[in-house]
Amino acid sequence: MAIGAEQAYANLVERSQRIALLGSSAGVLHWDMETYMPSGGAPHRARQVSLISGMTHEMFTAPEMGEWLSTVERSPLVADRESDAAVNVRELRREYDRSVKVPKALVEELSRVTALAHNVWREARRRSDFQAFQPTLERIVELKREQADAIGTGPTRYDALLDGYEPGMTVAEMRRVFDALTAELSPFVERIVASGRTPDRTILRRDYPAEGQAVLGRIVAENIGFDLTSGRIDTSAHPFTISFGPGDTRLTTRYAVHDVGSSLFSVLHEGGHGMYDQGLEPEHYGTPRGEPVSLGIHESQSRMWENFVGRSRSFWEYALPIARGIFPGALSGVSMDAIYWAVNDVRPSFIRVEADEATYNLHVLLRFDLEQRIIGGDLATTDIPAAWNERFAQLLHTTPPDDARGCLQDVHWSGGSFGYFPTYTLGNLYAAQFFAQAQQDLGDLDGMLRRGQFRPLLDWLREKIHRQGMRYRAGDLVRRVTGRPLDHRPLMEHLRTKLSPLYGV
Amino acid sequence: MAIGAEQAYANLVERSQRIALLGSSAGVLHWDMETYMPSGGAPHRARQVSLISGMTHEMFTAPEMGEWLSTVERSPLVADRESDAAVNVRELRREYDRSVKVPKALVEELSRVTALAHNVWREARRRSDFQAFQPTLERIVELKREQADAIGTGPTRYDALLDGYEPGMTVAEMRRVFDALTAELSPFVERIVASGRTPDRTILRRDYPAEGQAVLGRIVAENIGFDLTSGRIDTSAHPFTISFGPGDTRLTTRYAVHDVGSSLFSVLHEGGHGMYDQGLEPEHYGTPRGEPVSLGIHESQSRMWENFVGRSRSFWEYALPIARGIFPGALSGVSMDAIYWAVNDVRPSFIRVEADEATYNLHVLLRFDLEQRIIGGDLATTDIPAAWNERFAQLLHTTPPDDARGCLQDVHWSGGSFGYFPTYTLGNLYAAQFFAQAQQDLGDLDGMLRRGQFRPLLDWLREKIHRQGMRYRAGDLVRRVTGRPLDHRPLMEHLRTKLSPLYGV
Repeated sequence: MAIGAEQAYANLVERSQRIALLGSSAGVLHWDMETYMPSGGAPHRARQVSLISGMTHEMFTAPEMGEWLSTVERSPLVADRESDAAVNVRELRREYDRSVKVPKALVEELSRVTALAHNVWREARRRSDFQAFQPTLERIVELKREQADAIGTGPTRYDALLDGYEPGMTVAEMRRVFDALTAELSPFVERIVASGRTPDRTILRRDYPAEGQAVLGRIVAENIGFDLTSGRIDTSAHPFTISFGPGDTRLTTRYAVHDVGSSLFSVLHEGGHGMYDQGLEPEHYGTPRGEPVSLGIHESQSRMWENFVGRSRSFWEYALPIARGIFPGALSGVSMDAIYWAVNDVRPSFIRVEADEATYNLHVLLRFDLEQRIIGGDLATTDIPAAWNERFAQLLHTTPPDDARGCLQDVHWSGGSFGYFPTYTLGNLYAAQFFAQAQQDLGDLDGMLRRGQFRPLLDWLREKIHRQGMRYRAGDLVRRVTGRPLDHRPLMEHLRTKLSPLYGV
Repeated sequence: MAIGAEQAYANLVERSQRIALLGSSAGVLHWDMETYMPSGGAPHRARQVSLISGMTHEMFTAPEMGEWLSTVERSPLVADRESDAAVNVRELRREYDRSVKVPKALVEELSRVTALAHNVWREARRRSDFQAFQPTLERIVELKREQADAIGTGPTRYDALLDGYEPGMTVAEMRRVFDALTAELSPFVERIVASGRTPDRTILRRDYPAEGQAVLGRIVAENIGFDLTSGRIDTSAHPFTISFGPGDTRLTTRYAVHDVGSSLFSVLHEGGHGMYDQGLEPEHYGTPRGEPVSLGIHESQSRMWENFVGRSRSFWEYALPIARGIFPGALSGVSMDAIYWAVNDVRPSFIRVEADEATYNLHVLLRFDLEQRIIGGDLATTDIPAAWNERFAQLLHTTPPDDARGCLQDVHWSGGSFGYFPTYTLGNLYAAQFFAQAQQDLGDLDGMLRRGQFRPLLDWLREKIHRQGMRYRAGDLVRRVTGRPLDHRPLMEHLRTKLSPLYGV
């Protein structure tokens, strides 16, 4: 019996919320897996998340979902394309069409294999032993190829995966953006390196006890606006952010005694992600209208707080006195000029998440190139370390000393997240565009940051981006907020303005 | 179309395992709720666990479950009543018959309300404000009455709840056991108090930094046999143990700087629970054959390690040198005699989980009495504090100074666990019977404990109890292992042997 459009829409919303609720339960299992789970718990955990993945997939791809979608699509409920209903139906349709093509068994197997892979990767990285990870990686790559073939959108396999993280983005467009960016960025980085100038890099490598880093991270996270009554900061092998739903957003970081920047910038970064999630509208939880636009837009929030705020001179005028209070030994006598340059130390380095703002995008480009070859079937997993090091040398003119600082460094592949990396550079580009617009809209943003007044910027982001949920796709959102389409120039402008005076280039 | 018994049994097992897997995912959510969840996450968490409770209830009570059960029950598969199949069918039938009577909406509502209640209770206890908890408790009691009425087994409402934790146990039998026990225990405790003798109670109340307590707890937990590669120890408001499945068993404790016993004995206690779970047969996970017999038998394991081992002189000959190494200031010059008596200090006290072995059972009796009146409808929740204090004065001749140390102290009611408390005294009784038998079977058990050799006792428990899963009901298991039915005398014998020399009674 056919039902009316209103009822069909109500059913869609209810199903979507139920799936989100169950999926977010698996989110807690994932968070625990990367923070507290004992190693012996891995096999059982893999079975748990696999079961839930299969259940949510089944709930999402049930035939009635397709019928409800069709009913609402033919109704006046979606006439206003910016209405909540139209947004929800548009995005559920997209996700439904992608999901129905993927067999449940594949979803379960991917979930099970990647859950088990986490510990394998962590252990392999610890021992810098790629061989220990390769068979697992091989299996994941097989499954990801299978998944991409099943989805089958776009001219290449990699298109199908990329589109899963950044709806509407294509490999060709991504390539175009990377080409435009690196055409300017690579010579710029080379001029910086050739300048021979370097800051005193030892400043950030003194004794910074982990307890003090945790205190500093907490203070900064709270001051920029991350709500710790609705969130936590824990430690994990690879920093990440996960939200279970309204009122519960978790960040992780990691502490190295001789590297205060590692934890501080990861807290700023994850804090940016976390504040986006905390700014989504709770009444739309579980429907696209209450979800983030894309990973690229998500990353624009983390990058903005990490780099555009956290590596600015203004931020350090606020932060240095606080940091000095916590680490009087390490930071007494360290000048503003010295710390500002130290946190903007541009040089080829091995670890992506600790790379400077400029070279960071070359790390991403490397992964974008390799992933296409791996998923496309042109690069065997056994050949990854050599290919990594070769491409690394081309882009950054140096070679990783071991695989732990090379192809084993990132958690992503162990989780099956192929196609995810390019969204990091998209995030940098979006962040540059948004930040330039915020400066224009807010007046003396630098003065605010200097005084530790982060609220105006956060409120601006809340209104322009967070509260919108998925109302607009990423490209449209950028155009609406900044008046311009995706463009590499604001990022280059930002890097030149900041780095040219420091390096005299 | 009818299916054969073999297929029906396979379906039952698969469904049971699936339910266990999904239910254990909710277990992770519960663990997180009591350990790490930020307060803002409570409403969303309540929705998550409520959804999963409803789903597992639906999976368990689906009509095909009843059909599969009937098919197997009429088949030769259950001819051998001790076979895995017979055990699984017997216990699934019992649980099915109980579950189908309870509407799904009630299951979901109970789950949602009790998940939300946890923070309300914790906050009320912190402020010793019963009024802040009373409306929540009222709602829980209403729901528990409704649940008990729906199940409707046994002559009283409370029978239905008690039977949920201790299959086969009745209020009448429990009353008989309590009467026999207290007839001997109460005068014995009174003689001890009247002796006027007391150990130096300050020994355990010196400065014991939490970090040192955590180290001691870890060492002891590992030495007695709790596998930390398949488990963890965290902190929570109320110590508890939860197992998600094979390879992942979590204990919690809590640290008070001036009370080293609180954390140490809770680690021994929860460690006993945890080792039971770790000793279940993983290949039977998710079916009754791989599950604990009852809460009473579970408690016999925790009580054995906490009291029969942990408060023995032999144990302290092993533990004191270790503790002295960690707390040289607090423990230097403390003799074996002094510490042994201090950990066997018998006196009326307010907090059940910190009560001595003898008075502990009076704390349980109080709850057994009150719960029957609450669930029966004879005691309004508003009158609980007064009723608590009155009964406390009758049994222990003193009155709690506030509700935090009175009726608010336990987590159980906030979780809806009415009928649970009596299993604690059952655990003490079972533990006494098991321990006496282990002493007989193992020879010089005291010598082993003195040398820190806990493995023989653990192996004995593994073979006699843990690996059996639910093969036998509690009463049968006790008879099989000890040759005698449930009996209060071994516990009184244990208490007299230990305490009479200390107090000269």
